[in-house]
Amino acid sequence: MLIVMKPQASEEEVRRVCAKVASLGYRAHPMPGAQRTAIGITGNRGPLEREEFEALPGVAEAIPVSKPYKLVSREIKEEGSLIHLGPPESGVTVGGKELALIAWPCAIESAEQALAAAARVRRAGARLFRGGAFKPRTSPYTFQGLGEEALKILAEVRRQFGLLIVTETVDPENCDLVEKYADVLQVGARNMQNFSLLKRVGRSKLPVLLKRGMSATLEEFLMAAEYVLAEGNYNVMLCERGVRTFADHSRNTLDLSVIPAVKRLSHLPILVDPSHGTGRRDRVIPLARAAVAVGADGLMIEVHPNPDHALSDGYQSLFPDEFEKLVEQVTAIAGVLGRTTPHSAISGSGASPGPGI
Amino acid sequence: MLIVMKPQASEEEVRRVCAKVASLGYRAHPMPGAQRTAIGITGNRGPLEREEFEALPGVAEAIPVSKPYKLVSREIKEEGSLIHLGPPESGVTVGGKELALIAWPCAIESAEQALAAAARVRRAGARLFRGGAFKPRTSPYTFQGLGEEALKILAEVRRQFGLLIVTETVDPENCDLVEKYADVLQVGARNMQNFSLLKRVGRSKLPVLLKRGMSATLEEFLMAAEYVLAEGNYNVMLCERGVRTFADHSRNTLDLSVIPAVKRLSHLPILVDPSHGTGRRDRVIPLARAAVAVGADGLMIEVHPNPDHALSDGYQSLFPDEFEKLVEQVTAIAGVLGRTTPHSAISGSGASPGPGI
Amino acid sequence: MLIVMKPQASEEEVRRVCAKVASLGYRAHPMPGAQRTAIGITGNRGPLEREEFEALPGVAEAIPVSKPYKLVSREIKEEGSLIHLGPPESGVTVGGKELALIAWPCAIESAEQALAAAARVRRAGARLFRGGAFKPRTSPYTFQGLGEEALKILAEVRRQFGLLIVTETVDPENCDLVEKYADVLQVGARNMQNFSLLKRVGRSKLPVLLKRGMSATLEEFLMAAEYVLAEGNYNVMLCERGVRTFADHSRNTLDLSVIPAVKRLSHLPILVDPSHGTGRRDRVIPLARAAVAVGADGLMIEVHPNPDHALSDGYQSLFPDEFEKLVEQVTAIAGVLGRTTPHSAISGSGASPGPGI
Amino acid sequence: MLIVMKPQASEEEVRRVCAKVASLGYRAHPMPGAQRTAIGITGNRGPLEREEFEALPGVAEAIPVSKPYKLVSREIKEEGSLIHLGPPESGVTVGGKELALIAWPCAIESAEQALAAAARVRRAGARLFRGGAFKPRTSPYTFQGLGEEALKILAEVRRQFGLLIVTETVDPENCDLVEKYADVLQVGARNMQNFSLLKRVGRSKLPVLLKRGMSATLEEFLMAAEYVLAEGNYNVMLCERGVRTFADHSRNTLDLSVIPAVKRLSHLPILVDPSHGTGRRDRVIPLARAAVAVGADGLMIEVHPNPDHALSDGYQSLFPDEFEKLVEQVTAIAGVLGRTTPHSAISGSGASPGPGI
Repeated sequence: MLIVMKPQASEEEVRRVCAKVASLGYRAHPMPGAQRTAIGITGNRGPLEREEFEALPGVAEAIPVSKPYKLVSREIKEEGSLIHLGPPESGVTVGGKELALIAWPCAIESAEQALAAAARVRRAGARLFRGGAFKPRTSPYTFQGLGEEALKILAEVRRQFGLLIVTETVDPENCDLVEKYADVLQVGARNMQNFSLLKRVGRSKLPVLLKRGMSATLEEFLMAAEYVLAEGNYNVMLCERGVRTFADHSRNTLDLSVIPAVKRLSHLPILVDPSHGTGRRDRVIPLARAAVAVGADGLMIEVHPNPDHALSDGYQSLFPDEFEKLVEQVTAIAGVLGRTTPHSAISGSGASPGPGI
Repeated sequence: MLIVMKPQASEEEVRRVCAKVASLGYRAHPMPGAQRTAIGITGNRGPLEREEFEALPGVAEAIPVSKPYKLVSREIKEEGSLIHLGPPESGVTVGGKELALIAWPCAIESAEQALAAAARVRRAGARLFRGGAFKPRTSPYTFQGLGEEALKILAEVRRQFGLLIVTETVDPENCDLVEKYADVLQVGARNMQNFSLLKRVGRSKLPVLLKRGMSATLEEFLMAAEYVLAEGNYNVMLCERGVRTFADHSRNTLDLSVIPAVKRLSHLPILVDPSHGTGRRDRVIPLARAAVAVGADGLMIEVHPNPDHALSDGYQSLFPDEFEKLVEQVTAIAGVLGRTTPHSAISGSGASPGPGI
Repeated sequence: MLIVMKPQASEEEVRRVCAKVASLGYRAHPMPGAQRTAIGITGNRGPLEREEFEALPGVAEAIPVSKPYKLVSREIKEEGSLIHLGPPESGVTVGGKELALIAWPCAIESAEQALAAAARVRRAGARLFRGGAFKPRTSPYTFQGLGEEALKILAEVRRQFGLLIVTETVDPENCDLVEKYADVLQVGARNMQNFSLLKRVGRSKLPVLLKRGMSATLEEFLMAAEYVLAEGNYNVMLCERGVRTFADHSRNTLDLSVIPAVKRLSHLPILVDPSHGTGRRDRVIPLARAAVAVGADGLMIEVHPNPDHALSDGYQSLFPDEFEKLVEQVTAIAGVLGRTTPHSAISGSGASPGPGI
Repeated sequence: MLIVMKPQASEEEVRRVCAKVASLGYRAHPMPGAQRTAIGITGNRGPLEREEFEALPGVAEAIPVSKPYKLVSREIKEEGSLIHLGPPESGVTVGGKELALIAWPCAIESAEQALAAAARVRRAGARLFRGGAFKPRTSPYTFQGLGEEALKILAEVRRQFGLLIVTETVDPENCDLVEKYADVLQVGARNMQNFSLLKRVGRSKLPVLLKRGMSATLEEFLMAAEYVLAEGNYNVMLCERGVRTFADHSRNTLDLSVIPAVKRLSHLPILVDPSHGTGRRDRVIPLARAAVAVGADGLMIEVHPNPDHALSDGYQSLFPDEFEKLVEQVTAIAGVLGRTTPHSAISGSGASPGPGI
């Protein structure tokens, strides 16, 4: 059930509806919008009586929700959500006019590497830095990340360059530690239906970046986000990173048509990760352009941490100057859609006219 | 085996190599390039002796080809192929700086409809008109196309609007008829591995538009094109139209990452069909933008033939003014990549600078 | 529309209904059943009036058919179809108690090979011999079959061993030739939606073996069969041969769950091809056992044509003694289901009790 | 690296090799076989020196392992593993001649239901009872299981009927609780790459039932099992439960060809779950027969808990008498392969001759 308040409803009236919901043993999720507030109800097993709520002062309508997801739906919140990252003064918001650029080195192996990479991507316009401290790996015998040591390096990256830190959390207990260092909690594709973890990050104060599972349908993807919102954390960003198909010319098949599909159904912003999505360096820039053109709210790009050591690179990570080229190109395309990148501000371009698609 | 001639090799020397190949019972495919000519050899069952050819005058190198495809490969022809469509004076070329725009009504049911649709798409900048005369349909009980009557209507569309006609041929015998009317022969996704048909269009003088099969790997797609080239018809355009996956939010999963993959391996141009690729009107424009941004050489777009009859539309076809909006947006994005559309010429925009990505 | 006649309806009454259908410009498909005759109507674009038919003498009911397929449906013919192969005296029937065993050498390269292979598989109980005369190959440069020469060899196999000949036809024109030699026309997976070919074999007097396309849904598979039946050829056998998925441990993913699904919806028999379905010799026997256990009406098995030349084998073909072992095992499993194989008759086993599942 | 001991090597010699491995900072996994002991080494980042180990007394060979998995591989342990479940006196072993039958009600909602279901499935020959206490559900709003209350009911089922209890654990913390009640820990398909959970169950004393992820390749599946073995728990049973494909006629596509593929590569037993694999009651029995015929070591079958309440059933669960029919049929097929079911012992059948395939 979704309670839509009248535009002129007072805060007191909203509170009274929430109290009523609580008294019935359910949970109320007030979601203030630009025009008016909507209140989602969760925790009810069967259908509710509309009349019981429509009789309350300030209520415009009580809508039974048929879709399996509620809180992530545009039916409950028409305008797109803006997710603020970092401390209030950071000024970094995802889902608005400016695209988010998250750069990440393929692995954090030392402070030197991480700081060198951070310096380069900061210069190219990235505001967000993703570093893997705990890496879920297919094999138990490959490097599983530096753990807390990496988290400390990431904290230093933030201190020195003002980059906000995105890092993955892999289980509920581990989340306690990661929360101390990160600005954004990432839930990886393999954990998209790890419901214990989804509930745990749903109780966090930090925004969550939720990657689509390798074979997740759109509905399953939105339901995973619903788990986080249902616990009270509304700051969720989605991320498409390629799905598993028969096609063998790239590691995964980047499903860009999911972007307009998400935009239609949900108010949550969605990013694209063309590095994992293609697994090949020479595909990253073209697919990054396409992701921006299709309407994504941002990009996650793997950048080589050590520009002096070009030969030992990860197969899919861009060299820093390729990343700069990418930022330049997507900034131009963003301009066509009436959007900007952090680079637009630096170079003074892009924010300009644009047909405002 | 691929024979690479010296840059200064004479035509006589090329002819002599071809004669040698023929004398061995194989087939020679001379492919003149900007710098020099390469000659592909097909028809040999086992490996050939390099020395036998390298001894001939004018030959730079004889290269054993490991990939299963030869004639479609960039190894044999480094620069991208330009496919000229229509009579010499048409000036329509696919694979160059200008993107191809193929518009098509969801069905040709009468001359009036077809001509009305043609007038609108011509105005929006399309130079190519696709009309279904023989429609391969999943069910034997649904409309299979008007047949030759539709071909005559298409001829009238060409006469009145100067649009070039793209139409599908469904079997070798049917090809005899379609050839009389069409400017471009289309081979549909369901026939991508109909080798009898591929050989037949390979013996045609008309250019071929080959759509990717629903579950074709990149290699199978290129091998299907190889069938056409191996018969002597080098004017092949590829077209990505979505592949079959578990994802159910769109009819097919448009695989845009195949565009840079084709570009890397083959000299053939490749278009994208976002109408079939998504099956939903509201996804067509975003995916068309993405297709241009990723580097496609053109678009096939389904446009509603009857703007006065909005309710009875096909689920995936754009209304004419949506098509105009699409052309405007992709022209702007093409400009960012240093490319143009036929609309650029009309509006004077787009051809301008652009970072020339 | 489906007209169900009363059990006691006369042949004259059936004829009168058919004439009525023809007079309306549609096509009638009388299908005699054990209890009563049903008449399918095809060729109508819109819905028909039930009353118009229910008023005719001998008609029990006129049923509007909602599914896109009609003639292949169990709604039109409740009991499973029995397809008789070869001349009347052959005694080979598919879809009944006895399973069909089709053996085939990986290629027919000479009369000696074919005859040697035929002798071995005949001894093991096979009644059907599949030989590839025209082979649809992914590459234009690989062996495309011996053509008519192979057909003549197959005719000799029939003459010497009494094996019935199954062979593939690849286009409508080619069908004229193949029909002269074959007992069963095969339509391959790549041609499952080659509608020109489906219509052509629908006008043949020979039974058709239709293989499932690599990414065909169940509905598309049944619709392809519907094309054949709609032309008047009701003798269609289906064949599951694996679908294309992400799984890379076998060449295709054999979809055995489609067998009970087909059995529920359609009266047509369905075979399984575990050789193409797995692409690996060591998987063929286990999957053949599973195919029989799940309820398939027969098997197609690739057998090595030359037992003396074991090293040059096709990767997926069984050696003759492995084929004999397979026949023995599937005969035992067939016995558990109350079914037999041609081998049961030879060995005297299997036909015996069995719980009659 | 895999150390293969000589057949006559003493326990002391095995201990010495393990001590050597530990002294290098790695982990030794001694795996006693029928003929001789092999010792897997994990924890090493780079390659090891063979000579260092081959010099030790009792060592036959030190083999560098190229496959990404080691401990699950047949290279390390040639004969199939036998996993003993429950207390020593239970006599239930998976991977041997007798197939495992795990029956499970679609949900445990009360003690009455669970006990009634248990009585029926016990009578039909099941020795293992799976009950869902903590259910990972796609939606946060659907029933998530009764939790510890269900575990107590399951303990009562064990006490009254001697059934061993299989139940799912969903995160490392939850595992502490589940371990107190269960005989077998299940890791569900959605958690197949939840590496924190895999490590936790790897430290448990209980055997683990690991279900294949929805889009897991064979290698990823084996690597997930490797995580469990690498922590020291070698008692792992695999379970195929259907993969995600385009096919829409069943909920998932049961990939039976993975059974012989696993058998070839790994010594671990593998079961099949045709209930989840098909999602439809009328497919469960045919696919259960096929699973046994292909060589699976057991079945997991959903059985309706309340035979008196037939209408409110889960769509995929068998009624108790259907389950009995299934057991009868698979027992007969198992007999053909020279295997038995717990029902064989009861009915006195099946264990008998059989060609011993």
